[in-house]
Amino acid sequence: MPASPGLNEYRRDPFSDAWVLIATDRAARPEEFRQQGYERVGGRCPFCLGHEDATPPQIAVYPANATKSSWQVRVVPNKYPAVVPPQGHRVDASDSHELFSSSIAHGVHELIIESPQHRTRFTDLSPQQTDYLFLAYRDRMAALAREQKWSYAQVFKNVGPAAGSSVEHAHSQLLALPQAPHRVQVEIEKSATYFRHHRRSIFADLVSEESKRGERIVFETADFAIVCPYASRVPYETWVIPKSSGSRFDRAEDGQMAKLATVMRDLIGRMERALHQPAYNYVIHTAPFDTVEADHYHWHIEIFPRMTTQAGFEWGAGHFINPVSPEAAAITLRIA
Amino acid sequence: MPASPGLNEYRRDPFSDAWVLIATDRAARPEEFRQQGYERVGGRCPFCLGHEDATPPQIAVYPANATKSSWQVRVVPNKYPAVVPPQGHRVDASDSHELFSSSIAHGVHELIIESPQHRTRFTDLSPQQTDYLFLAYRDRMAALAREQKWSYAQVFKNVGPAAGSSVEHAHSQLLALPQAPHRVQVEIEKSATYFRHHRRSIFADLVSEESKRGERIVFETADFAIVCPYASRVPYETWVIPKSSGSRFDRAEDGQMAKLATVMRDLIGRMERALHQPAYNYVIHTAPFDTVEADHYHWHIEIFPRMTTQAGFEWGAGHFINPVSPEAAAITLRIA
Repeated sequence: MPASPGLNEYRRDPFSDAWVLIATDRAARPEEFRQQGYERVGGRCPFCLGHEDATPPQIAVYPANATKSSWQVRVVPNKYPAVVPPQGHRVDASDSHELFSSSIAHGVHELIIESPQHRTRFTDLSPQQTDYLFLAYRDRMAALAREQKWSYAQVFKNVGPAAGSSVEHAHSQLLALPQAPHRVQVEIEKSATYFRHHRRSIFADLVSEESKRGERIVFETADFAIVCPYASRVPYETWVIPKSSGSRFDRAEDGQMAKLATVMRDLIGRMERALHQPAYNYVIHTAPFDTVEADHYHWHIEIFPRMTTQAGFEWGAGHFINPVSPEAAAITLRIA
Repeated sequence: MPASPGLNEYRRDPFSDAWVLIATDRAARPEEFRQQGYERVGGRCPFCLGHEDATPPQIAVYPANATKSSWQVRVVPNKYPAVVPPQGHRVDASDSHELFSSSIAHGVHELIIESPQHRTRFTDLSPQQTDYLFLAYRDRMAALAREQKWSYAQVFKNVGPAAGSSVEHAHSQLLALPQAPHRVQVEIEKSATYFRHHRRSIFADLVSEESKRGERIVFETADFAIVCPYASRVPYETWVIPKSSGSRFDRAEDGQMAKLATVMRDLIGRMERALHQPAYNYVIHTAPFDTVEADHYHWHIEIFPRMTTQAGFEWGAGHFINPVSPEAAAITLRIA
């Protein structure tokens, strides 16, 4: 069955069981891929204070009692969503042929605007703004969990055109999805397998072993280990792993979010100094909404500076050649 | 156990079982990632006719009886290999901790120089040169299979800095590896599962079903189907799939290689016209050397134009948002 024009679809890759989001209503002609740099709407930034009418009406605001001119962090629907909520009784147009499995790309796509001022760098946000930012992530995930329509909420931040960002003003994105992404599913499966063998969490073991060895630790606090992972896929890949258990980010407590914001400010400051304000992505990994607290899994944040271009070997092989060892990366970030 | 400085390692990612090649002897300081564009050695191209001394001694040459000035395609060891052959009785320094599994990055890394002239585009190669190129891929794979030291040979081509290429002169690469890359392993597993259910090859079914539906076919010949796959990960992703069975590329016949070269010239010409000489990668997927002919698997070539930048969603999730449907991509390439 052909794709309905303008209707986004999830399609299953029969050679990996991963799914791809075919977002045709974002389609562009070949020419349109060539542009680099940032979009502006009529020459003004749609995310700045005073331009609130350039976005759809807000979903949430921080502080909660903020007026139109005193907000610090704002959550709005994405005007150009990759996924859309289900409407009425529309029948799912799945093609059930085993080679061609698809479903309508239902979901929610939100933007989190991180400052009323035209800030572009995370480290230029005020501590209050980053505190609100992590609360906003947690609160929106919790609200979407309560809707009981979604299995997963993917929070991510793209900084710089080389990291896929098209808007300069500091912002993050959230996608609520009917299933957890493939990488997260596999990660949870592997963590469960490890737990069955050892009766211990792989994340707890990782934190204690890395802490003991020291060589891949960027820094540690009482609550978090900041580690360049042993099998880092890209130079300066870094994970922020909570030391306490907790598989679902949407259930984290206010106090932990404040500590996380402090850790992220420190870490991203180190990356900006050591790597000269690199483009980067970070992504929160969490257990899906239908998971009761799982002993074997920890939510965590993965940060990927975009120093290298993926070449053919990586594309074709689904794995990576990393020219900087995590031990060297950890030294660089530790002293930055 | 710390990584030995200067010694490349394969490391297993315990959260996915994929492995990463930590190639520290290619390490660069952060500044060195910033350069874009192409390297030259002393201002001259090391791959051009007359500069043969700029590469290690050749492994193979086409035509086979070529003199120093009449070669058309040359195979040489990579002067900066990502992997190295085992030497003497060196003990494998594997760290056997389950969180930290590694082995020395043994392998072979070769370059295939596609023309004695300073050609940069595949479509500027002569038909004779592209004919030799595909014979060279097949012959080198077959020779490495005969060494009985390797499980897999990965052939790939990177075109353009955005596709990870640092040398302008048309060339391909070959890596002989002790195991098949993760994506290929998974692909073969899924193909075997399909075969057990249906007693038919997923590749044969795909070719016949796509041929019947037509909407994702770029073109067909008597021997090959050229298809934008149903769950294309990136815009204009295209696969070249042989219609005859054959799981191992290293056992393909001369006649099939000549036909493949013709198909690739046609396809890449379409991409260059329609997508304005894009950066791209192509990769040959084949069954590992220890596979007896497998009914369930077909070698094939996957081509990835690099029109978009992967953003946080893809990185964190291990899956893709593709803004161009394969149906639209096939139309664009069909009429180009």
